[in-house]
Amino acid sequence: MRTTPLYGAVQDDLSRVEAVFDEIKKVDFGPLSEMLGMVLGGGGKLMRPGLALLCGRFGTYDLDRLVSLAASVELLHTATLVHDDVIDRADTRRGRPTVNSAFENSTTVMLGDFLFAHAANRAVETGSLRVVQLFSETLMIMARGEIRQDLAAYDSRQTIRDYLARIGGKTASLFATACEGAGEISKQPEEQVSALREYGYNFGMAFQVVDDILDFTGDEEEMGKPVGSDLMQGTLTLPSFLLMERSPNGNPVEAYFKAPSPEKLQAAVKTVRESGAVEESSQMAKDFCGRAIDALSALPDTADRETLAELARYVLDRHS
Amino acid sequence: MRTTPLYGAVQDDLSRVEAVFDEIKKVDFGPLSEMLGMVLGGGGKLMRPGLALLCGRFGTYDLDRLVSLAASVELLHTATLVHDDVIDRADTRRGRPTVNSAFENSTTVMLGDFLFAHAANRAVETGSLRVVQLFSETLMIMARGEIRQDLAAYDSRQTIRDYLARIGGKTASLFATACEGAGEISKQPEEQVSALREYGYNFGMAFQVVDDILDFTGDEEEMGKPVGSDLMQGTLTLPSFLLMERSPNGNPVEAYFKAPSPEKLQAAVKTVRESGAVEESSQMAKDFCGRAIDALSALPDTADRETLAELARYVLDRHS
Repeated sequence: MRTTPLYGAVQDDLSRVEAVFDEIKKVDFGPLSEMLGMVLGGGGKLMRPGLALLCGRFGTYDLDRLVSLAASVELLHTATLVHDDVIDRADTRRGRPTVNSAFENSTTVMLGDFLFAHAANRAVETGSLRVVQLFSETLMIMARGEIRQDLAAYDSRQTIRDYLARIGGKTASLFATACEGAGEISKQPEEQVSALREYGYNFGMAFQVVDDILDFTGDEEEMGKPVGSDLMQGTLTLPSFLLMERSPNGNPVEAYFKAPSPEKLQAAVKTVRESGAVEESSQMAKDFCGRAIDALSALPDTADRETLAELARYVLDRHS
Repeated sequence: MRTTPLYGAVQDDLSRVEAVFDEIKKVDFGPLSEMLGMVLGGGGKLMRPGLALLCGRFGTYDLDRLVSLAASVELLHTATLVHDDVIDRADTRRGRPTVNSAFENSTTVMLGDFLFAHAANRAVETGSLRVVQLFSETLMIMARGEIRQDLAAYDSRQTIRDYLARIGGKTASLFATACEGAGEISKQPEEQVSALREYGYNFGMAFQVVDDILDFTGDEEEMGKPVGSDLMQGTLTLPSFLLMERSPNGNPVEAYFKAPSPEKLQAAVKTVRESGAVEESSQMAKDFCGRAIDALSALPDTADRETLAELARYVLDRHS
C-alpha cells in the first residue's frame, strides 16, 4: 500500500517518520534492539502518521514538529498493540494468536512501556503541552476502553451502544488525536481543528467497524489471523450484536459463548456471514465514513482535502 | 510512618497528593474504581511525593504545581509496580507472589497504562514541558532497566557494575526526577537543581540497596513477601554479587540458580546472611546515603535541608 500514492502530497515525508523509528531501534542492547525491530520493523500502513501529516497541510506545515507528532501517534499505537499481546497463558487455549510469542509476558509489558516513553518523548518534541495532554487523555480513554472490554468478555448482555463507546475509546480517539494534534501544531483556526478532530474520530470508527467485519469475512492469510478470532477471545463486535438483535431468542453466537467449541465457533461465523448482519455493519461503516467526509467541508477545498476524502473511502474498501 | 513528622514542613501538604488519588479513583465504572482502590488505596509511604514537595521549598513553593509533580511521580511509580506484577503464569511455580492475583494479566497491563496516562496528565499540569520530558526519559530508563533485568534473569555472569546500572535505572532515576522536577518547577538556580538531582539519585540508590538487603534479612510479615524472593525470581542483587565475589569457585547462590529447589534457596539465603555480604552491602548503602547528604551542601542551610538529610538517614535504618 505504501507504494501507491495514497497519501498524496505527504507520501515522501512519511519516510521521515520511519527514520524516527530507525533511530529508536539503535539501542546499545542487542536483545532490545531485536525486539524493537520486530514491532517497528516497517510494513505497517502508517495510516495515523499519514493522516497527521496531511492534516498539518491546512495550516503552517512545520515538518519537524509534525513528524514528531506523527511518530508519537504511531508509537502510542504500537505500544498498545504490544500490550494487547500480553495474555494469560491459561487463555491460549481459547486460541488467541500471540504476535509476540517469542517474548515472555513480563518483557512484552516493559517493551510496551519503553514505546510509551518514546511516544511521550516525541510528543514533548512538538513543543506543545496541549499535544502532550491530548496524548495522555487518549491513552487514558484507550486503557479504560480495553479494561471495559476485558471485563465484559463473554458477556452477551452488552449493547451496540457499549460497542460503539468501546471502539470510540480503543480506536477512534487516537485517530482523532492525530488529526486534532496536527491542526494544533500547524496553528489552524479553532474551527478547522475541531473539523479535523471530527474527521479523525469518524474515520477511526469506520476503520474499526471494517476491521470487525473483516474478522468474519476476511481471508485468513491476508489478515494473518484466523477468521472469528474476536469471538474466540470472547469479544462481541458489531456483526455479532446485529445478529443477536435479529434473533433475540437464541442464536449460534450466544450458544458459542455459553460453551465454546471449534464447531460452535464455525457455526457462529457462518450464521453471522449469512444473516445480513455484515451488510448492515458495512452500512454503519459507510455512515461513519460519510460523517468524516462531511466534516471536511469546514476546510479549504484543496487537493489535500480530496486526499483525506479518498483515504476515508479507501478504508471502506480494504480487504486486510 | 506517615504519622511521624518525617516529612517536616510538608507533612500536611501530602494530603493534597492523596486527594489527587481520591479524585482518580472516582471513575464511573465500578470494577475499574475497585482496582484503583487496591493500588492507590493509601498506606504507602509517599516517599517520592514527600521528597518532591520538600525539594520545592528551596525555591518558589507553588503548591498546586508541586502537588501535580508529586502525584505524577507516585502514579508513575505505582504504574510500574502494577506492570511488575504481570508475569507468565507458567512461572508462578518459581514462587513469585503476585500482589494482584485477583486480576487477569491483560487487565493488569491496562490498569498500569491507565495509571501512566494519569501520570502524564499530572505532569502536563505542572505546565512545564521540561518536567514532562524528565518523565518520559525516566520511564524509558526504567523500562530499559527492567528489560535488561528480565533478560539477565538466572544469569550469574552479571557484575556488580551491571547491578548498579540496573537499580540506577529501575529506582534511582525516578527519585532523581522527583527532586530535579521540584527544583525546576520552583524556579531554583541551575546549580541547586543539579544538587537536588544528585541528592535524589543517591537517595534512590541507597533506598534500593537497603531493599535488596531486606530481601535477605527482613521479616516476612513486615515485608509482606517471603525472604529470598529476589533469588526465587532469578534476580541477583548486591548481597548475592558480593558473596559470589568472595567465593568464585562455587557457592550456594550459583548452585540454586543451576537447579532451583526450596532447600537450595534456604541454603543460599543462609550463606548470604552469614557471609559478611550483608554488612558490605550496608556499607555501600551508607556510602550512597553520604553522597546524597553531601549533595545538599549546595542548598541553603535550612530546617528543610535537615529534613532531607534525616530522610536519607531514615532510609538506612528502615526494616520494611
